[in-house]
Order: sequence, then C-alpha cells, then structure tokens
Amino acid sequence: MKMYGNWRSAAAFRVRIALKLKGLAYEETFIDLDAGDQHKPEFRAINPQGAVPALFDGDGPPLTQSLAILDYLEETKGGVRLLPEDPRARARARSLAQVVACDTHPLYVPRVRTYLMEAYGLPKERMMEFVRHSFETGLKTLETRLADEPGTGRFCQGDAISHADLCLVSLWVGTKIFAVPTEPYPTVARIAEAILALPEVQAAHPLRQPGAPTS
Amino acid sequence: MKMYGNWRSAAAFRVRIALKLKGLAYEETFIDLDAGDQHKPEFRAINPQGAVPALFDGDGPPLTQSLAILDYLEETKGGVRLLPEDPRARARARSLAQVVACDTHPLYVPRVRTYLMEAYGLPKERMMEFVRHSFETGLKTLETRLADEPGTGRFCQGDAISHADLCLVSLWVGTKIFAVPTEPYPTVARIAEAILALPEVQAAHPLRQPGAPTS
Repeated sequence: MKMYGNWRSAAAFRVRIALKLKGLAYEETFIDLDAGDQHKPEFRAINPQGAVPALFDGDGPPLTQSLAILDYLEETKGGVRLLPEDPRARARARSLAQVVACDTHPLYVPRVRTYLMEAYGLPKERMMEFVRHSFETGLKTLETRLADEPGTGRFCQGDAISHADLCLVSLWVGTKIFAVPTEPYPTVARIAEAILALPEVQAAHPLRQPGAPTS
Repeated sequence: MKMYGNWRSAAAFRVRIALKLKGLAYEETFIDLDAGDQHKPEFRAINPQGAVPALFDGDGPPLTQSLAILDYLEETKGGVRLLPEDPRARARARSLAQVVACDTHPLYVPRVRTYLMEAYGLPKERMMEFVRHSFETGLKTLETRLADEPGTGRFCQGDAISHADLCLVSLWVGTKIFAVPTEPYPTVARIAEAILALPEVQAAHPLRQPGAPTS
C-alpha cells in the first residue's frame, strides 16, 4: 500500500498504527503541511480536500478520512482486530473515537489555526488559546467517560485495543506538540501509556517519522 | 427507542432520518441548546460531552456520536440499508460522511460559536464569518468530489441512499439556517434535493420538529 501522510498529523498516526498492528506493508510519502504541499495541484488530484492521510490499496482510488480508512482496513484485511464483535461495544469504541476525530482534532488543524490568525488578526499565542481549549474539552469528555463507564478496561473499550485507542493516543501525542497540560486526565494518561507501550505504536509514533523535530 | 435531540442539530437530524428510513419507532426529547440544557447535570449524566443526539435502545447505556449511532443501527436493525455492501463503496460513503461530520459540522456548533465571541470578543457577525468559511470549505470539498468521482450516482454513493447522504443533507439544511450561499455547489444541490424528496427525510426535517421557528 502507499500512504500520503505527515509526521505530525494525528489522522495519519491513527492509520499508521492500524497498518502496523495488522502487519500490512506500506510506503509513506510525507506531505509538508507547513510548506502548503497539501494545496498543490498534484496532491489535490489525490485528495481534493487537501488533507492527509490518503491511502492507496492496489489499483483502487485513494481512500481518505482516517476513520473511513480504519473501517476499510477492518473489513478487508486480517491481523489484529481493532473493533470488538459486540455491536454495543463497537458503538462505544466508535463513539469514543469520534469524540477525538470529529469533535476535537478538526478544531486545531492547520487550516483552522491559519484562519483564526489571518481572518481575525490573532497573534499565534492568542490563537493557541482556542487550540488548548479544544484539546481540554475533548480530554475532559474522554476522562469523564473512561473513568465512569463500565466498558473501560486496560484500553478504552475492554482489554483489547480499538479505534478508540488509536484516536486517544493521536490526541495524547498532540498534547506534547501543543503544550497542553495533562494532569487533569489520569485515566486518559493510563490508557495512553498502555497504548504507547506497544512496539507497533512506537514505530508509528509521529516523532519517529521523517521530518519530525529531533529534539 | 428514546432519543435526546434538538430541532436544529445536524447530528440529531442524521440519526432521525436513519430511524425513519429503517421504520424504527422512537420518542424524541428536545434539549434546548440555546438555553444551555445540554450542560445541566441531568443531561450530563446521559452524555458527559453535553452534546446531542443520545439514543437509548432498550435497557442499554446511551449511544452517542451520530456516526457511531448510524453504524450501530446498521449492524443491529433491519429496514433500508444505509451502507453499500462493497468495502470500497462503503469506504467512499464513509469518507464523504466524515467530510461533513468530522471536518465541517464540529466547527460551527454552539460551543465553538460561543467561544469565539466570548474569548476573542468577536461580535456575532464577525464570528459568523468563521461559520460560513467552515460551511464553504466543506461544501467545496463535497462538490469537487461528487462532481468528479465516478462513484457518484443519484445519491452520493451510487443510486442508494447512504450515511454520506444523511450527512450531506444535514449540512445542506444548515446553509438555510446560517444563510450560506449555495450557488457554487450544483452537484451537492442536486443530491440534497433528491434526499429531501423522500417522505422519511421530510418527516425528520429540522423545521418540522418541536421548537423550530414557524417562519
């Protein structure tokens, strides 16, 4: 398979973890989001949205949107299962995943950060207040649900890793990149550490990809 | 089933359409988002995120996040199918759905609108520029993909209604509520009209729910 991603992209990180956990071989081409390469015609031809990741599986058209790609991999490939069998457990794993992938991550992508600075003339530090507010809102929801709901186990949904964990860890790594305090979220932290202990997740880690800062 | 929703909520609209297309009986309790009822302890006990919809199916815990609910209904209930069988077609339907449900709708929910006005002191009209920008970015992606990709048919994915259409129409109805110009999106408009022609969608329409403005 061939993937277009970026070291920092939370969405690319989720897909990279799934590919590694399922033992699927892939090559990743890094799109420089800071340089605006996602807006160039050659990438827009792959994904008109100008967003990573985009994944090619054989000769088919590009697959886009990280959660859609995760479901596609689950439905078509073997390896570690990343959704539980039980429909209610699946629904809970998906709901937790979407707290991150729908209601948190899209609020702090480059497009939104740039808009706030350019359209409203906000200096970077003031724009970052919105980024941190978005992280904190998502993390607070995850912490409350994971601490209170009986479905939580070693991972978000029971004791097996699922799409919820891929999303959770993609948010967690972002707290380091964007300097978001994490002390108020001990349950999220515990699960993030369990996910980060997996060698496949380490290999997929943003800071181990080409283009990432070395310190 | 018992659903907590709101007349204006795009996410509740998606779920309401699915319930009606599948012929599932439900009662809806309307949460007054403008009055902040989503933040009251009795609703936070149902969904700690303070977001609608939340759906109860029998004695189980509340189901949350509209796309997770749609997948749950698809996996557990009969009636009209809302995802294609073919994995690539499913992935495309889901990707289009997520352009709306992940990358567009979460940017203009009440929480974000309120934050921009209160934290940055933006008057409503200036805040609305961000809302319209978010709509336009999502609509432009949908228009390009739906006009150019061979998978498009009478509906977003072929000739059968899918999750992609439920999300598309939830965005389309929002263009009326938020006064977003729609002329640049003829393919989106064509599909939205086909969806809105279905009696189940009319019955689920935001403006036909309790609490909606009458003119």
